[in-house]
Amino acid sequence: MDDEHFMRLALKEAVKAMETGEVPVGAIITVGTQIIARGSNMVEKLKDPTAHAEMIALTSAFNQLGAKYLPDATIYITVEPCLMCAGAIYWSKISRIVWGAADEKNGFARLTGPHNPFHPKALIQKGILAEESAVLMRNFFGSRR
Amino acid sequence: MDDEHFMRLALKEAVKAMETGEVPVGAIITVGTQIIARGSNMVEKLKDPTAHAEMIALTSAFNQLGAKYLPDATIYITVEPCLMCAGAIYWSKISRIVWGAADEKNGFARLTGPHNPFHPKALIQKGILAEESAVLMRNFFGSRR
Repeated sequence: MDDEHFMRLALKEAVKAMETGEVPVGAIITVGTQIIARGSNMVEKLKDPTAHAEMIALTSAFNQLGAKYLPDATIYITVEPCLMCAGAIYWSKISRIVWGAADEKNGFARLTGPHNPFHPKALIQKGILAEESAVLMRNFFGSRR
Repeated sequence: MDDEHFMRLALKEAVKAMETGEVPVGAIITVGTQIIARGSNMVEKLKDPTAHAEMIALTSAFNQLGAKYLPDATIYITVEPCLMCAGAIYWSKISRIVWGAADEKNGFARLTGPHNPFHPKALIQKGILAEESAVLMRNFFGSRR
């Protein structure tokens, strides 16, 4: 299945982040079957707490396409986006948003409650390879305690 | 008054944005009486819809201080931040957030309702030179219709 295929690639980005001491989150942006951008969390590397996988992937996609809107794109994220990243995805006009594990602490949903922060026409798919992503997160935070 | 002084400088950044065809929003980050970063909206220039004044100023501040948290800083923004920027300010651990005009359409508050998206200890001050900022926005959007 395509969603699982691209989510596996997002998980690869998450593993890449973890290997350099970052919270393991990865993102992939596609148009059709083509990958146009990848991102892995770089908060520690860049000393920038906004350098989330999604932000890195979005900036790369805008540059790649020379366009400030991505209405034909899908973003795959290993974990539910935070408020900042949900807002950035809204601005990008990405039409499909797929994530893996829920993030009860830092995910957007805790703060937006009944409101949809995304573009009203955007399609949302949650829970793709959620367990794989959650295991990565648990391993990372477990090993830090 | 200091808040008005720094907000006037943020308004200068907003005017700078408007002069190049951008939505007129500006931001200033201070530590004590010192300005450590400025930002003006660069969405059109960078073809990146996440290149808001706040994001530009935050990235500049992290680089300037070589630090990923800004607990001693204040951010001045001419307009209520959007969801993305509110989230970014949260991650930065900025301790004081000052803005001018409310933004009923794109401001974070419409989507977060009763929830506080900022750091729980952060101090919020709204309405500083709000009319000046609102006039800039109205002039910009008025001239585009």
